[in-house]
Amino acid sequence: MVIRIAQLQLPVSPSKQKTFEQVKRAACAAAQNQIDLIALPEMFSCPYEVSAFPQYAEEEGGPSWQLGSALAKEYGVYVSAGSVPEIDSQGHIYNTAYVFDRTGHCIAKHRKVHLFDIDVEGGQHFRESDILSAGDQVTTFATEFGIFGLCICFDLRFPELCRLMALRGAQVILVPAAFNQTTGPAHWELTFRSQAVFNQLYTVGTAPALDPAASYHSWGHSLVVDPWGNVVATLDESAGVQITALDLDLVPSIRKQLPLLSHLRYDLYHTPSFD
Amino acid sequence: MVIRIAQLQLPVSPSKQKTFEQVKRAACAAAQNQIDLIALPEMFSCPYEVSAFPQYAEEEGGPSWQLGSALAKEYGVYVSAGSVPEIDSQGHIYNTAYVFDRTGHCIAKHRKVHLFDIDVEGGQHFRESDILSAGDQVTTFATEFGIFGLCICFDLRFPELCRLMALRGAQVILVPAAFNQTTGPAHWELTFRSQAVFNQLYTVGTAPALDPAASYHSWGHSLVVDPWGNVVATLDESAGVQITALDLDLVPSIRKQLPLLSHLRYDLYHTPSFD
Repeated sequence: MVIRIAQLQLPVSPSKQKTFEQVKRAACAAAQNQIDLIALPEMFSCPYEVSAFPQYAEEEGGPSWQLGSALAKEYGVYVSAGSVPEIDSQGHIYNTAYVFDRTGHCIAKHRKVHLFDIDVEGGQHFRESDILSAGDQVTTFATEFGIFGLCICFDLRFPELCRLMALRGAQVILVPAAFNQTTGPAHWELTFRSQAVFNQLYTVGTAPALDPAASYHSWGHSLVVDPWGNVVATLDESAGVQITALDLDLVPSIRKQLPLLSHLRYDLYHTPSFD
Repeated sequence: MVIRIAQLQLPVSPSKQKTFEQVKRAACAAAQNQIDLIALPEMFSCPYEVSAFPQYAEEEGGPSWQLGSALAKEYGVYVSAGSVPEIDSQGHIYNTAYVFDRTGHCIAKHRKVHLFDIDVEGGQHFRESDILSAGDQVTTFATEFGIFGLCICFDLRFPELCRLMALRGAQVILVPAAFNQTTGPAHWELTFRSQAVFNQLYTVGTAPALDPAASYHSWGHSLVVDPWGNVVATLDESAGVQITALDLDLVPSIRKQLPLLSHLRYDLYHTPSFD
């Protein structure tokens, strides 16, 4: 079975309205290519700055949520609507990803579980945990193509989370993300390739385009990695739309040729750390 | 603190005596370079063939064990004596790695936990589980340089095991290994780099040299990866000795700049899989 995924690697405008128009145009163009799923980047409608999160935050069902749902319904495709700052009724803000089915119904919601804190000497500084609250769920959802996993950027650095998605049956992990010019060249491809290989599934990373005028310099490089660890498709840092056909039959084939998941030793990993 | 490691990437002779002489010569030469630790490859004194394992198997304390202990004592260095087929009193055979301290005392023993089974279409076929029994321990040990982890080849494909070593305090994971001409180009460097990055420690992989006359074609490429994921040193497929200085102060430094281990969500990973 094959799924065709369109990744929209776009810059984020300080104007939410401008961002929305840009996303609509790109989605409309992509939808002419017999695609099954549109993927947007992390914080696709909010500048990636800690101070911007409260200002751009939306309740569930807000304008960015509505846009994702409307695009899904209009084009009859799944939409992984990147992520947005979500504010709940208690005023907590989360980095939240939604997925909509072909009818525009929301079928998955993931709040970033691992908040991104970094302070590299001479490199990137950022502390999501100053302002965001963390989610507490592992997120998978069912589609006509099988089970998908969903996590956000920094979450992918934690093998525990990916393993749990794989054990729930995920054959593809969708990852709205935004590595930067420090961590991107060092770890972006490595992280997506290794989680694909360890769990023998597809990883799909969708990032904003680099905007030199923004305070946070996105690495871009939206990519698709297959279950053997091959980079099937990748962009550079510029704005672009990437359409990739994922052959899902490769998942059981690789798992049979190099059995990893069936060799797990949960007798051994059962340690006090997990009690 | 700096530790100097010598990796002996040598071919394996069908004659154990010839292999021993070769190891002694290489160790003697390496020891002239103010090294602290000598590392040997997986199955360093036994051809990597399932049928050879019973034939070359030794009880604990056998000739290969004695060689490792004697070299450690003679040169006053730690010796990670690769691995050997170990036969126990019940006749079970394990793929077992020993480590000796500067006095020749055995301070660590690891039996391969994940047995290597593979059947790639048009590529590598091998089934360790036809003849070997699996270990049931996570292995770490203390030295004057801090805590080290120890696992064998296929074990490194399982993030759970590396995480447990890291949580026990390992700053370096020693991995006698022998990837092949199928998995080597695809996954060797990726696996060592990603486990180093996920756990923010050094990984040290030591493999046999390629011997075109052998039935199993080793990928070689003995390497050292630092906690940021940089390949600090690597060989190609030919026989060679690689001496590398590992700056262990990089471990706490990287862990401070990009906090991963302190961001683990064991509330979340505590799932039925681990109960």
